[in-house]
This record gives sequence, C-alpha cells and structure tokens, in this order.
Amino acid sequence: MSAAKTTLNIAMIGQGFMGRAHSNAFHQVGHFFDSPFELRRKVICGRNRESLQAMASRWGWDETATDWQAVVERKDIDVVDVATPNNLHAPVALAAAKAGKILLCEKPLAMSVEEAERMAEAARKVPNVVWFNYRRVPAIALAKRLMEEGRLGQVYHYRAVYLQSWGPERAGVWRFKRSEAGSGAMGDLLSHSIDLALMLNGEISELSAMLQTFAPPTRDVDDAVLLLARFSNGSIGSFEATRYAIGRKNYNQFEIHGSKGMLRFNLEDLNRLEFYDCGDQQAVQGGHQVLVTGPGHPYVDRYWPPGHIIGYEHTFTSTLADFLEALAKKQPFHANFDDALQVQRVLEAVESSSADGRWVRLGKGTTRGRSEE
Amino acid sequence: MSAAKTTLNIAMIGQGFMGRAHSNAFHQVGHFFDSPFELRRKVICGRNRESLQAMASRWGWDETATDWQAVVERKDIDVVDVATPNNLHAPVALAAAKAGKILLCEKPLAMSVEEAERMAEAARKVPNVVWFNYRRVPAIALAKRLMEEGRLGQVYHYRAVYLQSWGPERAGVWRFKRSEAGSGAMGDLLSHSIDLALMLNGEISELSAMLQTFAPPTRDVDDAVLLLARFSNGSIGSFEATRYAIGRKNYNQFEIHGSKGMLRFNLEDLNRLEFYDCGDQQAVQGGHQVLVTGPGHPYVDRYWPPGHIIGYEHTFTSTLADFLEALAKKQPFHANFDDALQVQRVLEAVESSSADGRWVRLGKGTTRGRSEE
Amino acid sequence: MSAAKTTLNIAMIGQGFMGRAHSNAFHQVGHFFDSPFELRRKVICGRNRESLQAMASRWGWDETATDWQAVVERKDIDVVDVATPNNLHAPVALAAAKAGKILLCEKPLAMSVEEAERMAEAARKVPNVVWFNYRRVPAIALAKRLMEEGRLGQVYHYRAVYLQSWGPERAGVWRFKRSEAGSGAMGDLLSHSIDLALMLNGEISELSAMLQTFAPPTRDVDDAVLLLARFSNGSIGSFEATRYAIGRKNYNQFEIHGSKGMLRFNLEDLNRLEFYDCGDQQAVQGGHQVLVTGPGHPYVDRYWPPGHIIGYEHTFTSTLADFLEALAKKQPFHANFDDALQVQRVLEAVESSSADGRWVRLGKGTTRGRSEE
Amino acid sequence: MSAAKTTLNIAMIGQGFMGRAHSNAFHQVGHFFDSPFELRRKVICGRNRESLQAMASRWGWDETATDWQAVVERKDIDVVDVATPNNLHAPVALAAAKAGKILLCEKPLAMSVEEAERMAEAARKVPNVVWFNYRRVPAIALAKRLMEEGRLGQVYHYRAVYLQSWGPERAGVWRFKRSEAGSGAMGDLLSHSIDLALMLNGEISELSAMLQTFAPPTRDVDDAVLLLARFSNGSIGSFEATRYAIGRKNYNQFEIHGSKGMLRFNLEDLNRLEFYDCGDQQAVQGGHQVLVTGPGHPYVDRYWPPGHIIGYEHTFTSTLADFLEALAKKQPFHANFDDALQVQRVLEAVESSSADGRWVRLGKGTTRGRSEE
Repeated sequence: MSAAKTTLNIAMIGQGFMGRAHSNAFHQVGHFFDSPFELRRKVICGRNRESLQAMASRWGWDETATDWQAVVERKDIDVVDVATPNNLHAPVALAAAKAGKILLCEKPLAMSVEEAERMAEAARKVPNVVWFNYRRVPAIALAKRLMEEGRLGQVYHYRAVYLQSWGPERAGVWRFKRSEAGSGAMGDLLSHSIDLALMLNGEISELSAMLQTFAPPTRDVDDAVLLLARFSNGSIGSFEATRYAIGRKNYNQFEIHGSKGMLRFNLEDLNRLEFYDCGDQQAVQGGHQVLVTGPGHPYVDRYWPPGHIIGYEHTFTSTLADFLEALAKKQPFHANFDDALQVQRVLEAVESSSADGRWVRLGKGTTRGRSEE
Repeated sequence: MSAAKTTLNIAMIGQGFMGRAHSNAFHQVGHFFDSPFELRRKVICGRNRESLQAMASRWGWDETATDWQAVVERKDIDVVDVATPNNLHAPVALAAAKAGKILLCEKPLAMSVEEAERMAEAARKVPNVVWFNYRRVPAIALAKRLMEEGRLGQVYHYRAVYLQSWGPERAGVWRFKRSEAGSGAMGDLLSHSIDLALMLNGEISELSAMLQTFAPPTRDVDDAVLLLARFSNGSIGSFEATRYAIGRKNYNQFEIHGSKGMLRFNLEDLNRLEFYDCGDQQAVQGGHQVLVTGPGHPYVDRYWPPGHIIGYEHTFTSTLADFLEALAKKQPFHANFDDALQVQRVLEAVESSSADGRWVRLGKGTTRGRSEE
Repeated sequence: MSAAKTTLNIAMIGQGFMGRAHSNAFHQVGHFFDSPFELRRKVICGRNRESLQAMASRWGWDETATDWQAVVERKDIDVVDVATPNNLHAPVALAAAKAGKILLCEKPLAMSVEEAERMAEAARKVPNVVWFNYRRVPAIALAKRLMEEGRLGQVYHYRAVYLQSWGPERAGVWRFKRSEAGSGAMGDLLSHSIDLALMLNGEISELSAMLQTFAPPTRDVDDAVLLLARFSNGSIGSFEATRYAIGRKNYNQFEIHGSKGMLRFNLEDLNRLEFYDCGDQQAVQGGHQVLVTGPGHPYVDRYWPPGHIIGYEHTFTSTLADFLEALAKKQPFHANFDDALQVQRVLEAVESSSADGRWVRLGKGTTRGRSEE
Repeated sequence: MSAAKTTLNIAMIGQGFMGRAHSNAFHQVGHFFDSPFELRRKVICGRNRESLQAMASRWGWDETATDWQAVVERKDIDVVDVATPNNLHAPVALAAAKAGKILLCEKPLAMSVEEAERMAEAARKVPNVVWFNYRRVPAIALAKRLMEEGRLGQVYHYRAVYLQSWGPERAGVWRFKRSEAGSGAMGDLLSHSIDLALMLNGEISELSAMLQTFAPPTRDVDDAVLLLARFSNGSIGSFEATRYAIGRKNYNQFEIHGSKGMLRFNLEDLNRLEFYDCGDQQAVQGGHQVLVTGPGHPYVDRYWPPGHIIGYEHTFTSTLADFLEALAKKQPFHANFDDALQVQRVLEAVESSSADGRWVRLGKGTTRGRSEE
C-alpha cells in the first residue's frame, strides 16, 4: 500500500447483526474522518445465499460469496473482517493471517485460551483489530483520559455490570449454543466489561466466579456470570453479566471509586459520563453529569455540534477510524488480538473458578492492562 | 425577656396542616439547635372544638381556646403564630401586633396589597416572621450562598415552576374558596416561587401574566398561573404554578442560568442541588449533583451525618431556629412581613396583568430583593 | 417516476451544518429503510468553491456548482434540497417549485409570513418537505401516538423550553445576522418547539411574548424568546428558547400534563420518553422512564437492537424515509410547507406581541394542529 | 401493662449517633402515630458524664446514669434500649432480658453467632426489637408488598451495594476497632443489606466472600466486603459494602430482577422506588419513578401530604410505631433478635469464606427469610 488514499479491498465473513454494524462503519468512516484509505466493500461472504444478496445490495458490497476459504485467499483482498459466530473466528482468522491479510475480528476472540493464543501469535504478523468497540465510546475514552491524568487517585473499587433481558423467544439463535458461541453472557457481554476493566484499571490478579443457567432445556450456555476480583493495583472489584436482567436493555455500566473521585458510565446513556471530583470545593462536590458531546471530548468533534448526541453505531466508526490512522502511521493499535487474548484468559479463569468453587490466581502479566499500552 | 433560656409562651391560631408543621417545629427546634429560648406550647386556638382537643393532646399544647381575640390579648402569651385560612391573617396579626406580641404568620401574608401594607406597618414594631419555610431548605440556602459569592456571574434566565396535582376530590376545602383563600395556586404556590426569586435574583420590574381556572363550577379561585417577568438586574424569567400538573406532587423547581453557571433545584428532591460550574475544566463540565447533607452545607450539621437525608418538616424547624437566634441577638430576620409585602405586590400585579392582558410595571423598590437584606 | 427503484437526482443548495446532516440522510436511508427510490447525490451547490469541493468529495456528490438558479432549472434534477441560510429559502424554493422539482427545505421556512404564504402556495404543486426533523425522534413519535390514543386525556398544560448556550465566540456566523437569519433563537430553536406543539397539542389561539437580546453590539437578532399561550383545546402553555442557557447544550424539552397522565421529553436524552400514566395502580404510579429503542417503538426497529441507542442524525434519515414512502404511495407528508407556514404565523405573532406588549390572537385555523393531519 | 395508654418507662444505654436517633423516635412516635403507650424517657445511661448531661437535657431524659447494670435492674424501667458500641450489646441485652425488660437493640446484634444465639434465646421471653430501621423506609415497605403480591414473578437477580466514604479523619472512633465493633463495613453496613435481602428475597443458601482492609495501620476491621450468593429460591446475588466508595455518602441500594419486573431503591433517594413492570403495555414499559409519599403508600399517610418528603429519622419513628402496635396487640414483630441472628449467621459465613477462599454453605433454615414471617 502506498501512503495517500490507497484502496483497501475488504472481505467481510458474516452477515448478521455485526455484519450490519461493520458495513455501516465501512461506509461512514470516510464521511466523518479524514481517512487515509479508500475502503472498498468488495465481497461479503455468508451461508444463507438469499439474505446475503439482499444484504450485499442494501449495504453496497460488490460481490457475494459462500466459501470463506476461497475468499480469504483471494489476491485482491486486503482486509478480512470476521463477523461470524464465535466458533468460526479461529479458522477464518488463522487462514486470513496466513494469507497475510489485515485482520479485523469480532469478540470474544476465541472458544478457548489455547485457540486465542494461536490466533494472537498468527495475528502478530499482520495489522489486526478486535472489535471491542466500546473503547471508542466518547465517554469511556474520556474516562480513560481522566484516569491516565490521575484524576481518580488510587483506585479502591471497580464495579461493572452488563445487564440485558433476552426473552425466551430469542432461544434458538446461535448465541444460545455452546458449539457455536462457546459461552453465553460470558463471551457476549462479560468480555466487553473485562476488556474495559483491563484498559482502565489494569491487570486482574485473582478472581472467584459463578456461572448460572436459568433455563437449561433451551440452551447449553450460561445466562449469567458473576465474579469478585482483585486487581494488581490493589483495588478490588466485582463483575456481573446477565441476559436475565429484566428492565435493562443494554446496561453496560461501570463505577470506579478512587481516592480522588468517582467515575460512572452506562451504555444506555452512551453520551454521558459521571465524574465526582474531590478536587471541587467541598460544598459543591457532586457527580458532574458530563454530556460528552464536546467541546474538548474525544471523537465527537468529528460528528455533530455539542448536545447533538451520537449512538451505538458510531463506536464502530470511531474504532475503524483510529485503526486506519494507526495503520497509515504504522503505529500500534488497541484492542488487538493480544488484548483479546488477555480477556480470554480472564474468561477461562472464570470458568475454572466457577467449576471448582475456588479463587483462581492469574499469572503475572497474563492479563495485561493499561500500563503496557 | 432576659437573655438565657427565657421561656416564650406560644399561642397558635389554627389547627390544620400548617398547625401540625408549626407544632412539630416548636417541639424539634430545641432538639437539634442550641435554642436560646424555652418554647412553651401554651394555647392552641381553633374553631372545631373536638379536633382541637385531639390536636392539643397529640402535640402537647397546654390549653385549647376558640376565641382568638381573647387569646391574642392574654398577658401570658409572648408569641402569636397565625396558621389560619388566609382571610384571618390580617385581623389576627393586627390584633397581635397591637398587643405587642412576637408575630409568626403563614403565607401568603394577606388578601390584598392594602391589607399587607397595614400588616407590615403594624409588624415593624415587633419581632416578626412569615413562614416562607423553603428559604431554609439546605439546597436553597446553598444556592443563595453560591449566588452571593458570584458563582453564577451575570444572571440571564430565571425559570420557576411549582407543580402539584390536586384531584377534584379535594374540592370543598377552604383553599378553593376566594372568600377564605383570596386566590388559588397563586397565593398557595406561586407566592413561594416569587419569594425565592426575590431572595435569589432580586427585584422584578415588570411582568405579563395569565390566570386560569379549569374547573369553575367547583371553585372560584385560579387553578394555574403563568407569567413572564423582567428583573431589575437585566435577567428575564418565567413562572408557573398549578394544581393541574398531573404527575407532579410537590415539584417546586427553579433553574437559573448565569454567565458562569447554572443552578437547579426541585423540592421533590429536597436534599439535592444541581450546579453547573463554568469554572470547571471544560472536559468535565456538567451539572454537579450535590447531595446537600454536609459537610460544609447549611443547617444539615444540626441534623444527621452526610447522606442521611432530611425532609419537609425540617424546613420549619430551621426557620424557627434562625428566627430565635436573630431574636436573641436582636438582629433582623427574613422572611418577615415586609418581605411578604413585596411578594404580595407581585401577586397583585399578576392579577392586574391577567385582567388587562398587558405588561404591568412594578414601581422601583416595590419588590425588594436580595441586595437590601 | 415509476414504482420500483426509480432514481431521484438530488441537488442540494447549501454546504453547512445542515448540508452535512442531509448528505448523511441521503446516504443512510437506503441502508436502514426499504426505500422505493434510488437516491443520487447529483450536485451540491454553494458559494465557497474550496470547501464545496471537499464536501462533495467527502459525501459523494457527483458535481459541484455555485449558481443555484442554473442548478434548480436543470432537467436532470428531480429533487431540490434547500439548506442555505434562511434568507435564501424563499428564492430557491420558489424557483425550484416553479421548475416542478420535489422540494425539501430547512426550517424556519421563511423570513416572514408573507414569504411563507407564497412558498406554501407554490409548494402545493409539488411533493414537499420541511425538515422539522424532531418529529421523527422515536420518543416524540411515540408521544404523538400516545396522545392520539387518548392516553393523556384532556390536556391542561403544555410547557416547552429549547435551551442552548452559544459562547460569544460564535458571534459572526450568519445565524446572528438579521439580514440572513431573519431572527435568532426564535427561528432557529423556537420554531422546532412550536412545530412540535402544533403537532402534539393542536392550534394556538393566542399568545403573549417577549424577545430579548442580551448582547446587542455583536448581533441584531434575539438571543432569547419567551411566551405564554392558549391552545384551542383549552390547555395553556409556555415556551422559551434561548442561546444563553449556560449549562445546556441542546435541551429541547417539552412536558405535557393531561387529565390522565404526563409526558416529558428532552433532546439531550433523545432515546428516552417519560410517561406518567394515571391508569397505573395508584401505589406504583410514577413517570415511566421508557428507553425508546424497541420493541414496539417507532423507527427503531430499522436501526439496532433494543438498548442500542441512536443519535441526532437518525432523525433526518427517518424523516427522509417517511417522505420517500409517502411519495411512492402518493400520500400526504408532514411536516410540509403548509405546516411550516403555521409555525411562521406563530413566530410573527410572537414578534408582534413582543413589540406591543399585548396578547395577540391568532385567527381560527391559522395554526393548524394535529386534528387536521 | 394495661391496654390503654399504659406508660412505658425507657432506659436507653448509649448516647451517640444512635442515641440521638432513638431519642427522636421516642419523642416523635406519639405525634404522628396513634400510639397505644405513653413513652417516658426515664433514664439515659452513658460513660461520659459531661456529654450525658447535655444529651439528657436536650432530649428530655429525666435522669442520667453511668452504671448500666444498675439501670437495667431498676423496677421502674419497662424498656431497655441498647444503643452502645457493639461489644456491649450482649451483656446489656442479656441482663435486661433476664430482668424481664422489653428489649430494643441496635444492629449488628452481636460480635459472633454464638453470642447472637444466646441473646436470641434470652430475648424470646420478652418483646424485642432489633433496629433494622430501613425495613420501614416507605419505599422498601412498598417493595416488600409488591414482591409479596408476586409483582416481580420468579426472582433471578438480587444485587445490593451499601456505599459510604469515610475520610481517614474519622479513624479513631470505636467503629474502627475490632474489640468494640467486631467488624467494620460488614457489621455496620452489610448487615443492613443482608437483613433487607432476607426479608425481601428469603434464605441465602451459599456464598463466596472477600474482606478488604485498605488502611491497616489505622484500623483492625474491614473497610470493604464483597460477596456472591445463591438464594434458596434459585436466584443469585451479589453484595458489596464499603467505606471507601468516594462519591457516595449513604448509598444503600438494591436492585432485583424477576421474570415480571425490576425493583430498584437507593437510600440517598429515600422517598423513591423504581419499579419496572412487565405488565405494562410494551411500548410504555420503563422504570416507574414512584415518589413514595402517598397516596396508597406505607407509613407516609402518618406524616405529610404527597410530595412532602420525609427523611432518615422517620424510619426509626415508624419502626417504633409498628413495634408498639404489635406490643399492644400481642402480635409478632420483625426485625427481632431471631431475625438478627440470621443476619449474624450470614456475616459469620462471610468471614469464614473470606478466610478460606471457598464457597460456604449455610444450613437449611439458618437464614430464615420472608416466607416464615
């Protein structure tokens, strides 16, 4: 690729919910960001031929295909985007890495740590991304900046919940099958919370967890997962992810208490961050309700004026924009396959702890956090 | 009265909702404040003999009486507290002032400006209070302090609503009769909003208003009142008070925008004040949700530890405490009859504007505000 | 145009903030909706040649042009989209209507009622739209549906504020010049609030208003506007729009109290509607915080799963989608030029009332509301 | 004691924060409730003679004493109220029970399960109360009623946090010393959360816990405690109590998700309950923000009109009122010593699990829940 406005031909494997979210990002990134690349939606690959054609037509993919092995080896493809059910992440990504493609992959990265390790190793040879899109929520990027600036002081507590409510009517989709999804709420929801925690608060050193399936006949994955954790920085935390949180739709929340303040975020209120600042004069201390739409906020200057909020889809667009900029400048990008491997290690410890009913210690450096970035 | 723990014998005229609130304050003030006086609940006076006895017994009044004229002239009475329907405020207060009693009176002060002027003149000779109790909400006292410190800068907008929802089932009480109440939402609710506005933002110079009665057969007072206003400090404002705000119970709210920030308060959330501070670093600007329960907050150090909230009744207790302290130190106290007269002038301008459909100018100095306190 | 996937060639006049918002909608409508038309971004027309080229390139406009008169007469143009400063709405729209083009126009429609009447008359001959995009906020569309179903009962109060805070640094843009903008907060912000009020609560019969300019040297338009109103349905209301509401970014709020409940919305919280339902069992009555992201909610099924929020830009996309569907089905569409004319009549009454200091009566039927739709 | 207005002579042991809260309740219960008893504040007993005199004088205690053993054996004492540091609960309560006194005791009941068992056994012979005052928060009593009515359906998740922020400046008080307090956040805060959980959601069957001391040099008790739990009803839960939650003052929160809805409460917002009701029409489902101030709400009809909120202290008054009514009617009362024993068992399991790093199973029936009441 040369420097200016090189075209990148993309092959996307998968055509579901994430296929739509990625397609949108491929479209929108150039509208809002000064992208150094011309993205071409070259081929979309999926199993269901009928829906595939409609999807391709709606989102402007040049071609459709059903054989992903053939697609990832095509010479004219620069980027392979893996948006399949989880059990296909490894075979597709490994083949694409072998073929030297730029690699984008949905989360959770893999079905096991062993698989994730092989994928991360293969991916180190190519530019790569894992779509932990919530890192680019402006409010979360602002939280990260505030923590890096030391605005929270010493962290004491990290508390995260990811609450959804899936009706029984949704049973039957691949996300409820262990063979395709690997796990339930754990891989789907908890993986996001863990990725954010590692990014914001660093390495987890040990944990005690429980997994719960409320409706065993209709599914063989976990409906809910809870854990207690100790972080290497001395703070303690708890996590919960569940698909049985009636009353919540997409409540991905974290709260962090440090010696100098508190941060609070919740994805149903994506454009807002709460920041309690002990640096404020005592009489006016209280959680600042920050509408993170600028000025001075990450990403949002690319979209609309202050107060004109953005939504879910923008997190993918901003992720892609950051990656393309890193790619052009040959700089590292996060979250990548190595970051996702750390998440996978935590998930495996969760399963192990849940099975044994014991605390599990994570080896030093196995869940790399913020300081290494 | 001598300085230390002089006993004050109180006569309360009235036994309704306000009679309970005042009785509670007379009880509680000494528990939470270092009151310089011993308050004695000497006599409670009302028309309904039966309920009066129960009330006296429950709240510890030594005696009951039905003839207020006789009561206010009793030599052994030091304080007369007027908690009657509005049409009796003037006769009772005038008689009590003439008898040299310390004078406490419910709001709205009077049925007309003419009446209020006579009352204010009479009251200037004795220590006196009008129970504009919301001045002592800790969050409002904090708002006042912040404004006096210049934390809002130049004020542009003052916006107040007082929203209640009275079902039709409440028709029949004296508050719906012009002959006893004088007005409806205007005297009952708007008077509070106006008192706070004059205290916080100073004199109103002109206004345009409308009064509305939604259910004329059952009442002859206003159900709702709205007005636009210009303040002498150059800011503009709007007010609304209504008993037809279905969904709100006691939503006494104000919002103030100045060049340096915003303040927001609502009585249904009595322990909280929102303060947007343009002095904050830009990226973390957002309304501070201040839980006004200390430390460093007005009044609350007298009650419970931080986070242990107080309620409606405490506003009367704190009002009484401040008055007793002022009385002991022979210092001025607000809100007094003169303050309430200013409110009455605004209410009369509201009625006049509503009748004529025109803006009404208020004479300079007629609605005295903060600067004179 | 024939039924299936006719191509519509669009000419957009204007390249500012609204030009971006419209360009995005032209791109996105086909991704999320089953659009019966193929939209072609044919030509973008603007005065600044340099920025125009960048804009065209970024948003995929085939051609650029600087002479709008020539553009609107081009035979190959089907749609003219007016996204210019307000003073050009009339000349462009009139020329485009004369040329038989489908007409899209930004709000406020015109500089005066006289101008708006000429535009509305001309537009009756062609399919036409005014971009009152907030009608398509899912929460507002839901509010409309609830009101049409009678869920609020008899309306008593309608209360709207549109609060922004423009720093003095923004002085100099066309929106501060009467010659280009016609008015300030009134046309820019209040017009939205009035459009929503007419849609939701019907005709305004009379009003009393005030206009305020806080910083006359730097601008000759209003910074703030306030008004009291009577609606034909017997309810009363107040409106405020201001660019001096420090602490608020884009707080377009309305609250409606009826005999059966309350509705509350605020644009900074675009995905949420509060609904107090007196039909609920008394002990659990309280404002429902409805996250309007489905299921069963307008528009959002076209975008993302429940809890995955949308943003500002989607309101334009949904507006366009509705219009294209109406166009294909030859059905009426709102808001159109006639709807915008009603808004203009209210704005003119506001100016007149403000100048005279009197209530102004609006002729019956001049501000047509919901019932006529 | 005879039926009507028997006088109960009270001896209160302790004069700290809880001594004030109880004194207030003894005063206020007769003002707001139709108490069948005349309460006489007979003697207050404490170690610090000087502060004791001031306390007695302020709150109207007839006598002071420093020897609690003598006090609890006085013939003229009917009620002994234990408001001492935790290590004195057992000796005082046991002596008082032996003397046949009505027994009121602060929480946590004891220093160990063994102690609690002895106390509970002794208390079964006399009317007794443990001051788990939050059971009488109107919003919590409403939550209980809704759950008993089956409004939540099958419970899946129970989530509780009790967040406070104690500055280091508070080190030195007895609450930081193991010898006097027994534990830190666990006994002080978690005990409240556990009591509410057992009341609302029934027996806990097993748990995994961690205790944390952030500042060991200044204290020998836990600063924070976290646990995961399984309830006998099949639901799962998590608890956290901490004095290091900077940004929170008294945030005693619970959230419960069931098959039919969600409940959410937080003590900093004492007058509110959030209820998500799946029985609502789908389009208007959303958490009801219920202002629990009547009508139709527990306790609040005894205080002030709807929307006139109550505070922390009222929870003690209402607890006392319920107890006195039960006493008069010779009915059971909760929370009593047996209820507090169940809490103590959970706390001991927490310590045991934390020490071992394992799940701990609680014997069936050891933590009795709602169904037995």
